[in-house]
Amino acid sequence: MADTDTNVIDGLRAIVGDKACLDTAADMQPFTTDYRRLYHGKALAVVAPASTQQVSEVLALCTKHGVPVVPQGGNTSLMGGAVPDASGNAVVLNLRRMNQVLEIDAVNDTMTLQAGVTLQAARAAAETAGRLFPLRIGSEGSCQIGGNLSTNAGGTAVLRYGNMRDLTLGIEAVLPDGRVYSSLRGLRKDNTGYDLKQLFIGSEGTLGIITAAVLKLMPLPSATAVAWVAVKDPHAAVQLLTQAKRTAGQAVTAFELISGPALSLVLASMPQQSAPLPGVHDWMVLIELSSGGDAEGLDATLMAILEQGMESGLIVDAAVAASMADARAFWLLREEISDAQTREGGSIKCDISIPLSKIAGFIAEASAQVLALAPDARMVIYGHMGDGNVHFNPLRPKGTPAAEFLAAHYTQVSQAVDGLAHRQNGSISAEHGIGVAKRDDLVHCKTPVELALMWQIKRTLDPGNLLNPSKVLPLPAGTDHRATASSASTIGTAQTPARG
Amino acid sequence: MADTDTNVIDGLRAIVGDKACLDTAADMQPFTTDYRRLYHGKALAVVAPASTQQVSEVLALCTKHGVPVVPQGGNTSLMGGAVPDASGNAVVLNLRRMNQVLEIDAVNDTMTLQAGVTLQAARAAAETAGRLFPLRIGSEGSCQIGGNLSTNAGGTAVLRYGNMRDLTLGIEAVLPDGRVYSSLRGLRKDNTGYDLKQLFIGSEGTLGIITAAVLKLMPLPSATAVAWVAVKDPHAAVQLLTQAKRTAGQAVTAFELISGPALSLVLASMPQQSAPLPGVHDWMVLIELSSGGDAEGLDATLMAILEQGMESGLIVDAAVAASMADARAFWLLREEISDAQTREGGSIKCDISIPLSKIAGFIAEASAQVLALAPDARMVIYGHMGDGNVHFNPLRPKGTPAAEFLAAHYTQVSQAVDGLAHRQNGSISAEHGIGVAKRDDLVHCKTPVELALMWQIKRTLDPGNLLNPSKVLPLPAGTDHRATASSASTIGTAQTPARG
Repeated sequence: MADTDTNVIDGLRAIVGDKACLDTAADMQPFTTDYRRLYHGKALAVVAPASTQQVSEVLALCTKHGVPVVPQGGNTSLMGGAVPDASGNAVVLNLRRMNQVLEIDAVNDTMTLQAGVTLQAARAAAETAGRLFPLRIGSEGSCQIGGNLSTNAGGTAVLRYGNMRDLTLGIEAVLPDGRVYSSLRGLRKDNTGYDLKQLFIGSEGTLGIITAAVLKLMPLPSATAVAWVAVKDPHAAVQLLTQAKRTAGQAVTAFELISGPALSLVLASMPQQSAPLPGVHDWMVLIELSSGGDAEGLDATLMAILEQGMESGLIVDAAVAASMADARAFWLLREEISDAQTREGGSIKCDISIPLSKIAGFIAEASAQVLALAPDARMVIYGHMGDGNVHFNPLRPKGTPAAEFLAAHYTQVSQAVDGLAHRQNGSISAEHGIGVAKRDDLVHCKTPVELALMWQIKRTLDPGNLLNPSKVLPLPAGTDHRATASSASTIGTAQTPARG
Repeated sequence: MADTDTNVIDGLRAIVGDKACLDTAADMQPFTTDYRRLYHGKALAVVAPASTQQVSEVLALCTKHGVPVVPQGGNTSLMGGAVPDASGNAVVLNLRRMNQVLEIDAVNDTMTLQAGVTLQAARAAAETAGRLFPLRIGSEGSCQIGGNLSTNAGGTAVLRYGNMRDLTLGIEAVLPDGRVYSSLRGLRKDNTGYDLKQLFIGSEGTLGIITAAVLKLMPLPSATAVAWVAVKDPHAAVQLLTQAKRTAGQAVTAFELISGPALSLVLASMPQQSAPLPGVHDWMVLIELSSGGDAEGLDATLMAILEQGMESGLIVDAAVAASMADARAFWLLREEISDAQTREGGSIKCDISIPLSKIAGFIAEASAQVLALAPDARMVIYGHMGDGNVHFNPLRPKGTPAAEFLAAHYTQVSQAVDGLAHRQNGSISAEHGIGVAKRDDLVHCKTPVELALMWQIKRTLDPGNLLNPSKVLPLPAGTDHRATASSASTIGTAQTPARG
């Protein structure tokens, strides 16, 4: 270890305390590998500051010594966005000790908290105050508010409540040189100059480290109505959504598409669960309405949507949750799709959004292209159709080993799906972000002007390129990518097969 | 006129055509003076490009010659944000010819339009397609979508639908050097790198010129219920709002506070209108609920809110609109407050937002401070209490001439009100923006880090400081402000008395 490294580590210890500064490979391992164990990096040290002041001092120290810093929340990125590269020269700055809910203002309908509060704890704190914090994603027990902010998290309630960006009134963030930016004012309107918080939301820790936020709270719904609906096809699902929005307006809280193979996969991995509907269906949707009104009225609204869908031939069959337990069971089937794929291995994960008017056509066309490349792939397609967002994840056939399937098809299939989405005005990462996994794909789906602007902003706020380096921004044209490949994260043992 | 100026004007004519390039003082006057006739600037030329390509060519030409460009929509800024300074060296770029609605996608619930479409035309186009574009502000007949975007416009439906930023999915903007940035994709989720559109929204044309946008559409409400309510005081108004949100959830669309002197002013200026309630009340609120459900249900919800408010002693008296005509009459009284003040002359306009939990206390304290300075001032206080936003506009006493009142009180009163708002975590410009009117006040209400970041972004995107120069950003510390004063706009005949 170089003298400078020792100096840096000593300095970090002095700031955060001995216990909060790890520097052995064994101690650091949980923080240098992502939770799906696909990205294995190395670090100089892992520090867990206890205050914004300490974050500021850590960043000032690292900038002084030219040491890169990788911000980390719950380390639940699907894109390798929260772990360091393999060079071992970066400090991981983990926010878990900054886990205090600072204030709930029930009149202003706001909650102020530190970045290290988990989403689950944030939701629970809001509920204790009789309010809803509406962000809802699968990793809520582990992921942290700071990570939700820096990835502009989405999930299953965006249709009604918006993304994390829409739920945020102010943030506090530390800049690479240690200066602290703050807009923790809890204002719904503030047009005094540039809205600087927007720079830090969704930029995946490459411009500053978010240390606190003021979030919007909503009324807790007093009524919820849930149905599991078999539809004719994705076109019918989109039409049903349009009808549902016309009938129920903003009460439509979730509208999730589930393909037959997605449900089969979950049922095979959870033998104690049963399908909500008899028979086999190619396409299903999970609809949730919620409101502040009475349950009977909402149930009637849901029934009206279903009856209209039946009459117009969009719906093949439908089951309405008769109890909270039913509703939870329906949701469990939807939420387990991701983990069931992880257990099965060998899925090619694409996170696509498309204007709603084109999404059904996209699913048909992308499926045809994938099946032409990999005729036996199981078409696990599911997600937030209400937002025009589907997780389009072709899965290995049962008899084919994961590595073999991925080696044969990963690159072609993901390029076909992402390429089609891009050509149809879609996004190749609707909600999962870019991290390192999709970084170089941005060259193909962003214009030169967009890429140039991103780099202009990056260089302005982080002139030393020290904050989460090698994430999000593809190397500028003309730079030899291979020149830096030795310091890139290794993805499993080989770049392609270990994914998914 | 210098040779360079002639070259520039010739170049502009070649780009936009002779008819769309004005360069006589008489022709330019409507574009160099704001609509309240408070800011009188001069321009080298006024051009109205007909396409994004022409905007790009104009900007490239002006950048080449170092000529400043002032973007202008409907020229309805209250802050002098859309007119040039007195130097006469800037080109005004007016967007009015770019007034096409390009696409309405009723399935995706989006509308794509050019920046020069008026808000009224945008709302009408949405309604023709059976959809609501929910932004609602007094100047809708004149103001343009581009201006709404660059000022992040607010208005009377923010409580339910959010500000202009919340209603925008993508924009097209031309950078100072003529490059075109575009995110016109109509996606509700897109986490592929920095969300660059956020830079241009709310930055008042200082970073780029917005030429088109994709906006969100909502279901047209099928039911609306409106009440005019006398409340005990602003504290009671806040409690009533909390109860209304609990009872009606997101159906609460508008919640506007109106002080007694504000209503009296309107009634005096519109003798044909009558007050919705008998007697004189110090504080009133205008409540609007709307939903996609049936009118009877919504009326019942409104009645429940009013009954609960009566029972808990918050409400003194209430009138429910029995017809669309009633509702329109209630709204007319609210909407005329601004124009009634303009006709009366001599009001000190503050546009304050405060966390809702503090706004009632703020109103009491600010009123006491103002009345200590100007004991006979009429306390015209009104606005979007549901967003924590009030227009706090002390008005001259009836017998005192406007100029005399403003000369005596403008500076002290506005500093007292803005200072108190700032100390209570509020904003000194909730929705009107900064322009030139509030620019130097930012020095007092933004931190050095915020000001430094704003300048860093400005210099990065507009290195020549050519886009809407002298707007929004206060001069950096150490710069002698007076050194540039000769080129600043003149505000009426003297800086202070002509306002408001």
